[in-house]
Amino acid sequence: MRCELISVGTEILLGDIVNTNSQYLSKRLADLGISVLHQSTVGDNRERLLKAIGEAFRENDLIILTGGLGPTPDDMTKEVCTEYFGLPMYTDEAVADKIRGYFTRKGLEMPESNLKQALIPEGSITLENNNGTAPGSIIERDGKIAVILPGPPFEMKPMFEESVVPYLRKFSEHIILSKNVRTFGIGESAMSEKVSHLLDNANPSVAPYAKSGEALLRVTAKAHNEEEAERLISPVLDEIKELLGDFIYGIDVESIEEATVKLLREKGLTVAFAESCTGGYCSKRITDVAGASEVIHCGVVSYSNEIKNRVLGVSAEHLEKYTAVSGIVAAEMAKGIKDISGADFGVSVTGYAGPYYEGCTDEIGTIYIAVTDGERVWIKKLSTGRTDREYNRYVSASNAINEVRLCAAAYPDKRSEGMSLDELIKAY
Amino acid sequence: MRCELISVGTEILLGDIVNTNSQYLSKRLADLGISVLHQSTVGDNRERLLKAIGEAFRENDLIILTGGLGPTPDDMTKEVCTEYFGLPMYTDEAVADKIRGYFTRKGLEMPESNLKQALIPEGSITLENNNGTAPGSIIERDGKIAVILPGPPFEMKPMFEESVVPYLRKFSEHIILSKNVRTFGIGESAMSEKVSHLLDNANPSVAPYAKSGEALLRVTAKAHNEEEAERLISPVLDEIKELLGDFIYGIDVESIEEATVKLLREKGLTVAFAESCTGGYCSKRITDVAGASEVIHCGVVSYSNEIKNRVLGVSAEHLEKYTAVSGIVAAEMAKGIKDISGADFGVSVTGYAGPYYEGCTDEIGTIYIAVTDGERVWIKKLSTGRTDREYNRYVSASNAINEVRLCAAAYPDKRSEGMSLDELIKAY
Repeated sequence: MRCELISVGTEILLGDIVNTNSQYLSKRLADLGISVLHQSTVGDNRERLLKAIGEAFRENDLIILTGGLGPTPDDMTKEVCTEYFGLPMYTDEAVADKIRGYFTRKGLEMPESNLKQALIPEGSITLENNNGTAPGSIIERDGKIAVILPGPPFEMKPMFEESVVPYLRKFSEHIILSKNVRTFGIGESAMSEKVSHLLDNANPSVAPYAKSGEALLRVTAKAHNEEEAERLISPVLDEIKELLGDFIYGIDVESIEEATVKLLREKGLTVAFAESCTGGYCSKRITDVAGASEVIHCGVVSYSNEIKNRVLGVSAEHLEKYTAVSGIVAAEMAKGIKDISGADFGVSVTGYAGPYYEGCTDEIGTIYIAVTDGERVWIKKLSTGRTDREYNRYVSASNAINEVRLCAAAYPDKRSEGMSLDELIKAY
Repeated sequence: MRCELISVGTEILLGDIVNTNSQYLSKRLADLGISVLHQSTVGDNRERLLKAIGEAFRENDLIILTGGLGPTPDDMTKEVCTEYFGLPMYTDEAVADKIRGYFTRKGLEMPESNLKQALIPEGSITLENNNGTAPGSIIERDGKIAVILPGPPFEMKPMFEESVVPYLRKFSEHIILSKNVRTFGIGESAMSEKVSHLLDNANPSVAPYAKSGEALLRVTAKAHNEEEAERLISPVLDEIKELLGDFIYGIDVESIEEATVKLLREKGLTVAFAESCTGGYCSKRITDVAGASEVIHCGVVSYSNEIKNRVLGVSAEHLEKYTAVSGIVAAEMAKGIKDISGADFGVSVTGYAGPYYEGCTDEIGTIYIAVTDGERVWIKKLSTGRTDREYNRYVSASNAINEVRLCAAAYPDKRSEGMSLDELIKAY
């Protein structure tokens, strides 16, 4: 079954709000095995909406409309949809009572205009709204189905889950199961080349995506049930694991921080960050993950050289001689935060995030990351080639978290390479 | 001029990503006086994309396409668009060199497939990409214009601002100027009531919006030029300032953190955060602002009680007796970070962010914030009533930053209320 989503609302066309409904519905429909081949957005305009519905039904049997169910004259989705099907409308007294009750419960008087929301297309299915006044509708006619839902996500989502999902299940002959293989440290092109022979696969399909400095592979199977889908996916997943190895940080995890917190918890390890240019971003991302308190107890933001020296114990001589943006300072910051926190791994980030910096001794986008376990230290230098502050900070934090992941993955063995702090000082 | 936006990408139709590009472009085009009457999304599919382009050009003279400029065979926006116009393509050696250079600078080898990105439609305008390898294009033919942009927002946005905005200016007959009045600490309804007589204004129009615990008023004028627009807006803005007073943290600033950094810089003040439940989010948000190094030098993430005691000097007795989620512990954390950092203001956040916590002694969503200038301390308790971790962390950080703003705004006078730490201890 093919479906088109139509979002209705001038506020979307003006860019006042981000259309998150389309993303939500697309994802849920994909789970149900219903293909969304087109999404469109139109304003609060009768003619254009009527035209969009007509075009959508030329290609699809199912359309889902969101928005335009409010009480004002601008809200016309239900009316226009009913007009398209050539149906009459009637006032449903039960719905009208429910709307009156909604206002009474809130201690408010119902504006007369709200009664418009009790107008129901004849022969349609009414969808209860437990989070607002506008009911939804399903109109079925001549093999065409229109599902009409309210625009506010906190009304739309529960209505979709409670009423539309059970309704749609009867149309889905198969299910779609996707596994997202998330990688770090390899570009989309390089990753695609390593698995190039898999990219033409039909079922499961394998598709590469890039996102904020990471690359992911999505393996998607179409099957009659979950078990069959898992069976199709399993050998392909094994092959991908073999080919991409350590670049993979997780399958079906949300983020590098989630994967890293999970790994640290499993191994009973803790981490602490000393952050200069990321200014708390690493700790923030680790503590985004619920349950992070088991793996992180402490962190220091050392934005100035004075704090690097006084709080973290970085050598003033090294700060002077090599500047704050150097491998040796990164290493001493990592050691400092390990000592203060008592964590298993001390990690540091120091660099030029941009967009400009007057006393810059290196290019914007130059960032040093160090991890130490107290004996050895691993240093990574990034040269992003960009001056975009948010990008540089995000990618630096991602890399710092990934460095922890690599150390934790090797634990209790030592991760390869690395050197002692003394060796590092000698190397300088 | 009328414009349609076409987003290209199967990942959008699958609901893997939220389409933020459409919102961004719609908003910017509205600023330029260009109407977006339709947005659509199609997958990585030649036929459907070709059809979408044809339909869009039946109603509009301008279409802006985003996505599908990558190096893989799935990426075909430029090719399909060129096919629509019936143009040949050629390899632009300058672009090819730039792509090679991009890889060289990163110390990587360029995969051959990336050269596809140097294929340019004949007679088109090439748009430089300073944040990635895929250049954009503008194709003009028979009064129709296609603007082709990369999909990743951090590539798309700068390209749009640097190259497309100057190009589009010649088509706009009038300008739209908006001023965003940003407030903190007042709800959308309460704000709207205070300015209710302005909400029916035609030009400039005044519209309220709510966003992540903040409310904003947008004042929008339509005029022939910027000067005329400013003249229309100015008296309305003065009236709003009078009515909303201290709730306003800025006009046309991006965020509470930007406004606060600006204020601290103007007054030569510094701040340092001791963060428990926000885990670095306050410092991260302050250092999001370029130039934050003047106002923040230091921060501590004290996620565990042991670190609150050992690093920040919070009384172990108070931690035991009142728990970490208490006004007194917040006050001692603020004092601790002020002492360590030497900043003018020490600020702390401690609370239950959720979604659950086993040893919880208060409701999830209970958060204490303290600010001290070394003499007095100001404490704010939040009860968000929510268990949404990201929401609670974001709103806590916003409130902590706003507390700093209120202290800094009063400086060199003392902000009203507040008490000394001794008085606070006695009150407990």
